[in-house]
Amino acid sequence: MNALKLIGIVIGLSLLSCTETTSKHQVSTEKVTEIKNDIQRVEPPHWWVGFKNKTLQLLVHHPEIGNASPQINYTGVSITAVHKAESPNYLFLDLELAENTLPGQFNIRFQFEDQPDLVQTYTLKARPQSAEDYVGFKSSDAIYLITPDRFANANPQNDTVEGLLEQGVDRSNNYARHGGDLQGITEHLDYIEDLGFTAVWPCPVLTNDMPSGSYHGYAMTDFYQVDPRFGTLADYKALAENLKGRHMKLIMDQVANHCGLQHWWMKDLPFKDWVNYQENYEKHKSDWDWKSTITSNHRRTTNQDPYASKIDYKEMTEGWFVSDMPDLNQRNPFMATYIIQNSLWWVETLGLGGIRQDTYPYPDKTFMSQWAGAIMTEYPNFSIVGEEWSYNPLLIGYWQEGHHNTDGYQSYLSSTMDFAMQKNIIEALNEDESWDQGLIKMYEGLANDFAYTAPKSIMAFLDNHDKSRVYTELNGDLEKTKMALSYLLTMPRIPQIYYGTEILMDDFDNPGDHGLIRTDFPGGWQGDQVNAFTGEGLSGAQKEMQLFLKQILNYRKTSMALQEGETLHFAPENGIYVLARSVANETVVHIINKNESPQDLELSRFEELGLQGKTLTNIITHDNIVWDKTLQLKAKSSVILSYKVAETL
Amino acid sequence: MNALKLIGIVIGLSLLSCTETTSKHQVSTEKVTEIKNDIQRVEPPHWWVGFKNKTLQLLVHHPEIGNASPQINYTGVSITAVHKAESPNYLFLDLELAENTLPGQFNIRFQFEDQPDLVQTYTLKARPQSAEDYVGFKSSDAIYLITPDRFANANPQNDTVEGLLEQGVDRSNNYARHGGDLQGITEHLDYIEDLGFTAVWPCPVLTNDMPSGSYHGYAMTDFYQVDPRFGTLADYKALAENLKGRHMKLIMDQVANHCGLQHWWMKDLPFKDWVNYQENYEKHKSDWDWKSTITSNHRRTTNQDPYASKIDYKEMTEGWFVSDMPDLNQRNPFMATYIIQNSLWWVETLGLGGIRQDTYPYPDKTFMSQWAGAIMTEYPNFSIVGEEWSYNPLLIGYWQEGHHNTDGYQSYLSSTMDFAMQKNIIEALNEDESWDQGLIKMYEGLANDFAYTAPKSIMAFLDNHDKSRVYTELNGDLEKTKMALSYLLTMPRIPQIYYGTEILMDDFDNPGDHGLIRTDFPGGWQGDQVNAFTGEGLSGAQKEMQLFLKQILNYRKTSMALQEGETLHFAPENGIYVLARSVANETVVHIINKNESPQDLELSRFEELGLQGKTLTNIITHDNIVWDKTLQLKAKSSVILSYKVAETL
Repeated sequence: MNALKLIGIVIGLSLLSCTETTSKHQVSTEKVTEIKNDIQRVEPPHWWVGFKNKTLQLLVHHPEIGNASPQINYTGVSITAVHKAESPNYLFLDLELAENTLPGQFNIRFQFEDQPDLVQTYTLKARPQSAEDYVGFKSSDAIYLITPDRFANANPQNDTVEGLLEQGVDRSNNYARHGGDLQGITEHLDYIEDLGFTAVWPCPVLTNDMPSGSYHGYAMTDFYQVDPRFGTLADYKALAENLKGRHMKLIMDQVANHCGLQHWWMKDLPFKDWVNYQENYEKHKSDWDWKSTITSNHRRTTNQDPYASKIDYKEMTEGWFVSDMPDLNQRNPFMATYIIQNSLWWVETLGLGGIRQDTYPYPDKTFMSQWAGAIMTEYPNFSIVGEEWSYNPLLIGYWQEGHHNTDGYQSYLSSTMDFAMQKNIIEALNEDESWDQGLIKMYEGLANDFAYTAPKSIMAFLDNHDKSRVYTELNGDLEKTKMALSYLLTMPRIPQIYYGTEILMDDFDNPGDHGLIRTDFPGGWQGDQVNAFTGEGLSGAQKEMQLFLKQILNYRKTSMALQEGETLHFAPENGIYVLARSVANETVVHIINKNESPQDLELSRFEELGLQGKTLTNIITHDNIVWDKTLQLKAKSSVILSYKVAETL
Repeated sequence: MNALKLIGIVIGLSLLSCTETTSKHQVSTEKVTEIKNDIQRVEPPHWWVGFKNKTLQLLVHHPEIGNASPQINYTGVSITAVHKAESPNYLFLDLELAENTLPGQFNIRFQFEDQPDLVQTYTLKARPQSAEDYVGFKSSDAIYLITPDRFANANPQNDTVEGLLEQGVDRSNNYARHGGDLQGITEHLDYIEDLGFTAVWPCPVLTNDMPSGSYHGYAMTDFYQVDPRFGTLADYKALAENLKGRHMKLIMDQVANHCGLQHWWMKDLPFKDWVNYQENYEKHKSDWDWKSTITSNHRRTTNQDPYASKIDYKEMTEGWFVSDMPDLNQRNPFMATYIIQNSLWWVETLGLGGIRQDTYPYPDKTFMSQWAGAIMTEYPNFSIVGEEWSYNPLLIGYWQEGHHNTDGYQSYLSSTMDFAMQKNIIEALNEDESWDQGLIKMYEGLANDFAYTAPKSIMAFLDNHDKSRVYTELNGDLEKTKMALSYLLTMPRIPQIYYGTEILMDDFDNPGDHGLIRTDFPGGWQGDQVNAFTGEGLSGAQKEMQLFLKQILNYRKTSMALQEGETLHFAPENGIYVLARSVANETVVHIINKNESPQDLELSRFEELGLQGKTLTNIITHDNIVWDKTLQLKAKSSVILSYKVAETL
């Protein structure tokens, strides 16, 4: 034991004695002998001690609660402000949690002039792990994106839940619920892990109590409740815990921009500006239809455009995303706090490994900076990716943390989404080769990385729940799909792959149709004729792709070159594109040959890779080749070759 | 007279007395009684006193000059170093010009061990104006780009010049010389000024003594000589002076990347690395043809790409642009100095109002930073635009001064070229309107200005000497061509228009053919049936376009709103796009209606323009309209409306 450690122990002891002192104080607080639940809704429903931000704002919703005087008697917890809303049925309580506040329970007593007190028991929990241990997704990860309703139905009992607006499942209807659930994901984590993924991003699983089309999850009607058709909070926690046991990460898909039209608060909005265009909503809500809606103009560039008109910017950010998704007004400070606390609550509850934030350019961007900043302050090693559906690298760069923006905008997103490279890869493989067509689009697309602050932290993908399947986009060409996937997993990015890509799921019947893109994963339902989890009934091509992805992903799992390596690539020539990633003791070379004929690639051009005379292994076939004068490339193929320095004793 | 002025005079007097003291010293210098020209070539051929940079490096080229010891005896001028080259026929002299060196002449005496001295008289001139008075092109300018061989042949005497490799003119051959000259431009400055242009950019006019295809001017064989087929240095100066008299600017088209294969030094290169791939050239020069050339791979992104291979970068910057244009090696410090001094020499000689630097990403980019920095240091109000032919805004931004580049690259270009907007405008007008096609491309293209340090200083254009004519690109559609031009002249840019656009010159017969794009300007040659200078023989459409441009350009000349105003635009809706520029007392509104039918534009959406109830004038028709509830737009049309606050007494 050294001196430093000894000092540590002494400090530890003195901290402990401080804690005990505090503990003694607690004796004087109101003792919670019985859980009281007089109040309809208090959100967040509980909280934790130990956040850097010591304030907590409770939304209290109850008939006439606005007339009450709240009191709390718990050491360390003080009410610093009580805010009435415009609706009498809300109260917002600002609490201050002193530095050494202990976890525990206390009652919030609401006193009225003309009626008996109401009492709500509130819990402050201890945080299960230190702030640094919430480690977000990184370039060492590979993310499996799942539409939960369409992946696996482990519990048919929750397929339809009484009391919800949309009833029943109908697998013949692509826009109905199909019954997939959280348990379905959890039960198939062996499959996902075995494929080589290290993180799972399920589309939102919070309650979407909407009359129709609720399966996708983006129209939340309760920000604190798991949709009972997907399971329970316990199911969500079980998924999180199971992933953690595998050292895998759970990414939560959150939505700060909007809620579902049936959100509980839409019947009794706390303020006149709780949602945008609220006046219009109040006027038309009795016979609301899509024509009543002031929807967003979706002109997302108004966020950056120095010349954008005020009216376009307003319509962009305040217009509703669609007619059944009210646009939350984050400039209302209570709404702002609500959203930030909701995000922290879920990170803490599930021990998340990242957040994917929906429709990132739509909410107020100043707020989004505060939101992401608040999360990153609490969880310094966390990751957040925002969805900006733009093929313009200027916008991809704009939103990433540390980017030098001419308007001074400071973003706190560790990651952004690379729609630009998605488009480049698809076009590159579909187009005939020419001076400025074909592979050059991948090459020059990746060259744009010079404009990003952290290219390796950008999320890359070939498709997702909103985009036509890569196999469809590449016209059912297995070899081109392999080229796209092997490039995706070799380039300096965080790769995301949509469930079913491994078995060539497609949307040929109606390309781009959302319901079709989100086809049921075969084997996820009892009685499925094909079972992709076991391989039963899969075609040869499907099995080939499954194995192909499995081999690359599992290689990538331990490959420092692919995860963190320097990148070097050579301008495509004669339909051949060579990209390499390397660290000191490992070089991985990815080669695409788009030609319809085999090619002998002259290797002298690639001298700077330092591979002359070395033996490389094809990570799919495990064949060895010697990097000498030429390399034989099969017709229309891609190959990943690995060179590792033998470890010295 | 105030006290400050008085102090100024006193300082002035004392400076004068200093000068006189210096002047007395000069008596002791070698007196130049007779101009001596023993040396074949000394470059720069003369210089000036008073530059901030006090050093001057003379390239001396003469048989066996490498064996000589040079001497100078002139007050203030000292030889600080003498550099031998690898060829014995060169000597490089580093001179230091002391602060108060007077203009004058002196002899450089070259002493040999075994032969008589050679003497060369050298002149140091006084600078004609102060450094601040070399004012470069800005957003207040409109630039007329001319291919001099194809504009006007004022002096048929110089059409063919004995001793040059390419003889004769042949107007039936688009790749032969046609006889246009500098005097032809000068004689038609009334026309150009009348149209409303404020600056003229002729393509290069220095000697291109090449066996064929020399008319374009980009294969220089002497960096200090005007091509005699274009005229003389006196003609070039006359053009410059004439422009200056009109308060118009002359922009010189310079080439730092390459010379012509017949450049005089190619027969006797001073160093082994004077040009790139020189070893290859030396080996093959006796039977040089295109197959002998190592040409550039033209992969310009290697300048920025963090992953570019060394070999690709080398082939990009060191490969020859084409087989008859040797690539200058700017990493040779003598070459670097040669190019910088050459540029300064021309700025000073012609009193330039700007430089257009050819093929900007091809020379060594570190050198180009030094080059532009050196010019801007001497001429703080100057402008330089670099040609980067890229549709990628990331690259347009990268090269502009002040841009925050992640690789730390510092550029000194005040202006870059907006190929991206050129493409956007053409596509916007050709495409049918849809969510992401048509006018939205102009709107979102301009939105990218958020990423530029100085959008108004970027040069915009619809075509140039290398690109298909705008009228051809827009399929001969007069109204669309008007839309494009009126937008070009309204947007926050420095507009550049290629000669002949005003009379709808086209290249329909072979779209994109360089020789055809650079068609003779009608009326520039004696006997031309059509004369666009006088209007004789022009079609109605041609006259209409001439007048259209003239009206906008002349309005723009005095419009602070168009030159410097704030920009505001509204996302295109229903095929209508509204852009406004404004200063305190002037608002200019540009509207495109792409519909094939007249439209009544509801004006309530444009409230923030503050024009309600104001009377605006159509700057083409001079009709007045009141900005009220709706505005009637003609079918498929564009309109520029101007509102000016009446000047108060």
